[in-house]
Amino acid sequence: MFKKILIANRGEIAVRIIRACKELGIQTVAVYSKGDEEALHKELANEAVCIGDAAPKDSYLNVENIITAACLSGCDAIHPGFGFLSENPEFARMVEKCGLTFIGPNPSVMEKMGNKNEAIQSMIAAGVPVVPGSHKAVNLEEGLDVAESIGYPVLIKASAGGGGKGIRLVESKEEFTPLFNEAKEEALKFFSNDEVYIEKFIKHPKHIEVQLMCDKHGNVIHLFERNCSLQRRNQKMIEEAPCISISQDLKNKLYDSAIKACKWIGYDSVGTIEFLVDDSENYYFMEMNTRVQVEHCVTEAVTNVDIVKNMIKIAYGLPLQFKQADIKLYGYAIECRINAEDPRNDFRPNPGKINFLHTPGGMGVRIDSAVYPGYTISPYYDSMILKVICFAKTRLECIRKMRQALEELIVDGVKTTTEFDYVLLHHPEFILGHYDTSFIEGFIGELKENGKLIQ
Amino acid sequence: MFKKILIANRGEIAVRIIRACKELGIQTVAVYSKGDEEALHKELANEAVCIGDAAPKDSYLNVENIITAACLSGCDAIHPGFGFLSENPEFARMVEKCGLTFIGPNPSVMEKMGNKNEAIQSMIAAGVPVVPGSHKAVNLEEGLDVAESIGYPVLIKASAGGGGKGIRLVESKEEFTPLFNEAKEEALKFFSNDEVYIEKFIKHPKHIEVQLMCDKHGNVIHLFERNCSLQRRNQKMIEEAPCISISQDLKNKLYDSAIKACKWIGYDSVGTIEFLVDDSENYYFMEMNTRVQVEHCVTEAVTNVDIVKNMIKIAYGLPLQFKQADIKLYGYAIECRINAEDPRNDFRPNPGKINFLHTPGGMGVRIDSAVYPGYTISPYYDSMILKVICFAKTRLECIRKMRQALEELIVDGVKTTTEFDYVLLHHPEFILGHYDTSFIEGFIGELKENGKLIQ
Repeated sequence: MFKKILIANRGEIAVRIIRACKELGIQTVAVYSKGDEEALHKELANEAVCIGDAAPKDSYLNVENIITAACLSGCDAIHPGFGFLSENPEFARMVEKCGLTFIGPNPSVMEKMGNKNEAIQSMIAAGVPVVPGSHKAVNLEEGLDVAESIGYPVLIKASAGGGGKGIRLVESKEEFTPLFNEAKEEALKFFSNDEVYIEKFIKHPKHIEVQLMCDKHGNVIHLFERNCSLQRRNQKMIEEAPCISISQDLKNKLYDSAIKACKWIGYDSVGTIEFLVDDSENYYFMEMNTRVQVEHCVTEAVTNVDIVKNMIKIAYGLPLQFKQADIKLYGYAIECRINAEDPRNDFRPNPGKINFLHTPGGMGVRIDSAVYPGYTISPYYDSMILKVICFAKTRLECIRKMRQALEELIVDGVKTTTEFDYVLLHHPEFILGHYDTSFIEGFIGELKENGKLIQ
Repeated sequence: MFKKILIANRGEIAVRIIRACKELGIQTVAVYSKGDEEALHKELANEAVCIGDAAPKDSYLNVENIITAACLSGCDAIHPGFGFLSENPEFARMVEKCGLTFIGPNPSVMEKMGNKNEAIQSMIAAGVPVVPGSHKAVNLEEGLDVAESIGYPVLIKASAGGGGKGIRLVESKEEFTPLFNEAKEEALKFFSNDEVYIEKFIKHPKHIEVQLMCDKHGNVIHLFERNCSLQRRNQKMIEEAPCISISQDLKNKLYDSAIKACKWIGYDSVGTIEFLVDDSENYYFMEMNTRVQVEHCVTEAVTNVDIVKNMIKIAYGLPLQFKQADIKLYGYAIECRINAEDPRNDFRPNPGKINFLHTPGGMGVRIDSAVYPGYTISPYYDSMILKVICFAKTRLECIRKMRQALEELIVDGVKTTTEFDYVLLHHPEFILGHYDTSFIEGFIGELKENGKLIQ
């Protein structure tokens, strides 16, 4: 097994990985920025190396400093966590070139899945449904043809797009031409590139993802699905496993497609395939996350499989210790991401000092945290400060457990999303489980209407 | 289901029961003494009633005040937790007389198991092995006969004894008469009662206990065993489940005996039968705990069954929702009781203010706590302030998880047993699992010899 692993990350995921290493008997090296002198991950690792200034580009994105730290401290592997360099194939290649193991998939599959077009072409080749569309830049005439063939409504999207710019929803053929031109103009303005493509508009989609575990010997298994539809501006807030609002038949299709995709592309680590599911249970490949995810804990809770430890074992070259039939569902899990954000002020990040902290506990309550009483949350990084994961045999018990866990949680000194999540956990739509990705925005709307999000 | 339950206890077990009630949708009433104005259980319940001064006899043992509080707050049941009134049949009877449900077994079986002699006679009648001996007071001649028939070494024990007084270990027939007379003299001196009885001396016993779950409809199942041999002066310090140092054959015998015993006596709640197991895998009934135990959490971890919630359902009259075949073992669990005691000063209680608290977390780590940063531990009550429970698929992973959990735990302001447990978790005997009840005293001896327990 690896002797020493450098964790190229911070926050709760760095703590998570350090714990996994310790349980495997592996030494750990933390890296930290000058803004993270008092960070928990730095304290828990066997060694800690400062890799630069607080700004991520100077530290957690500083490839040279990180790899140098790994080499000088005698590491034989690097775990990238999530975010930062975790999906950067150049980083992975450089790690390997320096004689270290990158704990993740091989760089070429990472690269393929990181490129939206290539990923979609691979999925089509693997026989996995993708959102119907042009899948390449089109001119007006081609666009009209594609829209006609996939049926309205459609989206016109900037090829170089992001952040909601250069996107137009087209409800009918009559609207197509003017909106096409608008989208192109906006794309040119924002991205200096006026290429646009056409995609079918999926109404009320659910975000359902399948957790996968693949080794370097061709073994591929799934760890069931997660429902991650509770998102605000494409940021997941609450996740659960399993999903109760889709049929078993669809679940089986999702698992089959996900496994087929992994085999086709030669995936060789833990990873997640995200699907959009519409009202009629059509499903479409959205993207693959070629890394461990924030919400991996709900799957760990319901399957009892340690995803991070297995990710490390896989990177070392060990074959999976599980067959598909060994993976069972033992209950229901929910994760609430607790962010230092102010829900009453458009969820603006609210860094600052935690004066008092009390975390919940008891049966089926897991806390993955990067903070402690007296800790000052840095403005430089993600606002997620801890995760509460609850597990119970039934979903209702799990919801009740999470409610009381949030009742017990006290983070004094900064504003957090705790109360927002707590109220959400009482919403009939959440309790029924039939929410889609538009739910949170609607819920925020309701709260604002009732004057509950304005103090 | 019950509408409102009064929890006649304090500390982490009161918190534990409040959480179970909330998950079942039951309102809770906490009781607290004047010494517990800032106690966590008081904050977490829906209501809280002060029942008297800090001294236990004035509050947590004050039957009248507790039952009055339950009646006035409209409760329909009382959960006694452990310690205090939990094994007091008079209290249970009075609760029932006042029209409330006592959450525990029926008072007559509690009474029977609370009386050592009656309990042993019941076990003999049920066909459960008990420690061989006279099972009643004897004179010198009878004593010699009993010793001869059960074989040396034997113990001569004062019938009214306790605290190690009036006990003599007799290795051979020659020593019997003088030691018999010594024991009688000491018994008279300490207990004003010179009656003694004879019991076989069990060498190097392990303390193995079987968790049981029985309903009011005659259904009896076991939840496997716990190894609770790590004791200091008969106080358990670290418990684990399952036990790895006894054979499956013996385990089956223990389960069978425990179930037979429960059926024979008509037990109707959750409870535990404690056995002594010797080197040759002979086993003997020691006593029954007719209540939830401190160490119930390790069984919850390995079986995924919520013992406290089931205890409440049983008391309400619901039949067990499990059959024996539904109860499975999913891994290994260890519990460390963290006591505010000073191991370097003979484990003397060390109450005081917790200046800083940081609790561990992550996958498979459960914290059952009654404290928070800034909380002042009362000198009036038990020194246990929190429990760390770790669960993993293998015992070695579980040990490593517990080690790192203890590394992460910081309780600043009072001395605790954390470091002592941490060192113990590295002892080869513990790792091998082949320890008996004498282990901790021997371990303390080793540490003292090495100057490690004297600062």
